[in-house]
Amino acid sequence: MATCPAARGLEDDAAVIPFGSETLILTHDTLVQGVHIREDEDASDIAWKLVAVNLSDLAAKGAEPLGVLVSHMLGEDDQAFVAGLHEVLGKYDVPLLGGDTVRAEGRRVWGCTAIGRATCTPVPDRRGAKPGDAVYVTGQLGLAMLGMEDRGSGSVADLAYRRPAPLLSLGRSLAPHVTAMMDISDGLLLDAARMAKASSCTLALDAARLRPLAPAGRFEAALRWGDDYQLLLTGPDGLEARFAVTKIGIVQEVGQSSLLLDGHPPQEPLGFSH
Amino acid sequence: MATCPAARGLEDDAAVIPFGSETLILTHDTLVQGVHIREDEDASDIAWKLVAVNLSDLAAKGAEPLGVLVSHMLGEDDQAFVAGLHEVLGKYDVPLLGGDTVRAEGRRVWGCTAIGRATCTPVPDRRGAKPGDAVYVTGQLGLAMLGMEDRGSGSVADLAYRRPAPLLSLGRSLAPHVTAMMDISDGLLLDAARMAKASSCTLALDAARLRPLAPAGRFEAALRWGDDYQLLLTGPDGLEARFAVTKIGIVQEVGQSSLLLDGHPPQEPLGFSH
Repeated sequence: MATCPAARGLEDDAAVIPFGSETLILTHDTLVQGVHIREDEDASDIAWKLVAVNLSDLAAKGAEPLGVLVSHMLGEDDQAFVAGLHEVLGKYDVPLLGGDTVRAEGRRVWGCTAIGRATCTPVPDRRGAKPGDAVYVTGQLGLAMLGMEDRGSGSVADLAYRRPAPLLSLGRSLAPHVTAMMDISDGLLLDAARMAKASSCTLALDAARLRPLAPAGRFEAALRWGDDYQLLLTGPDGLEARFAVTKIGIVQEVGQSSLLLDGHPPQEPLGFSH
Repeated sequence: MATCPAARGLEDDAAVIPFGSETLILTHDTLVQGVHIREDEDASDIAWKLVAVNLSDLAAKGAEPLGVLVSHMLGEDDQAFVAGLHEVLGKYDVPLLGGDTVRAEGRRVWGCTAIGRATCTPVPDRRGAKPGDAVYVTGQLGLAMLGMEDRGSGSVADLAYRRPAPLLSLGRSLAPHVTAMMDISDGLLLDAARMAKASSCTLALDAARLRPLAPAGRFEAALRWGDDYQLLLTGPDGLEARFAVTKIGIVQEVGQSSLLLDGHPPQEPLGFSH
């Protein structure tokens, strides 16, 4: 993605800041119209997604949100944007701490910074997976993909696409038990490969366990589709008995490929790179 | 500026977040090419300004920076951007905590969030000016204006424009002594009017005290020019004996105009609104 190695440093996990006896988590995401956001997206859905994707980063850290800052590029639809902002902040009981508005012609850009308080230390990240761990995922895969094809219908899939739900409560419950955790924003396979590389190991996934999580006939696409904002995690065996997670594979010593699906490297591209 | 009243809430001061026994300060600024940044600006200067304007917001709070998150829209000049980022972060000893990079066609947008730790409470804001207070300003006015006309020369003015210096140390020294403080980003008159309105009083400024701070023959323009990132503050008489500030007026009970220059409302426009 980034052509400059130093700029790639900006792609890191959320920031973890020890602060007195507490630990702060800071995340920032930028959404660009036509890149992360469809040209015809409703402004209230844009506001929701902007906040939700940042809260999802906090969820993957097991963090409790303290608030968000929002940067909004003004347009014709500011009322709808503000309505969506109020909806998502109200739903997750998160205060709007500030931000800024700018006015400019052309392609619109939105930014959100979320700040949270870690509820457990060490704070989970993508680097802690260890050979012998089990690999788990929350929820369904590909629901947002179906939702994008079914936009505006009000179906469960439509809502999953337009109004992703950050898994704050589940993330907090899981955090003390995981060895690694991240949210799936760019597709399961791509994000699993990232976790494997960051942890210097191989994630070996089992198609038979993944298949029931994907919509019928869309298995390959669902594994490569982003926007679901489910959590990917590793940890001891048995977590599926205590939490709403599905075991999908195991962590192995690092091999030739950092990611295996039924023993073979999955076909590229693994997911959505932007 | 904003057409929607609720969106204007995003224009508030930096966020102040009580956190355990400490107080956190969070600021976010977005810079848009062609709006806040000239089309031909060097990417290293853009990176410097992006970080510096946020650190200036922390300076006005008397806060100590804990770090920044940077959102960078990739382009042809990423190396220069990263070089400028390293320069400004090194100069002020501020860690880069994270952020993101995005790739998109068209007008470029950059965002920065700075987080800081308050060094004194109550944290100064623009609402605390009281009748009887003196009004002070730091430094020179209009230096950035001269610098914009003299770009690339390497002069003091050129540097003031391209590489504004956040007054972190002076802000921390002043914070325990002020009743109100803010940085001047959109011109002295406009920001003084904002402070007066937020404090429900009138700021009465004295041209004879301001004139020596402005370049010869450019008095009216210098009072309306942004980008200087000096501090505007109110407090007891005598601060000029202890700190590098100039007394420029007094705070009065609120009158018909929230801002007076030699007893009269200054001519509109007061400054740079964007």
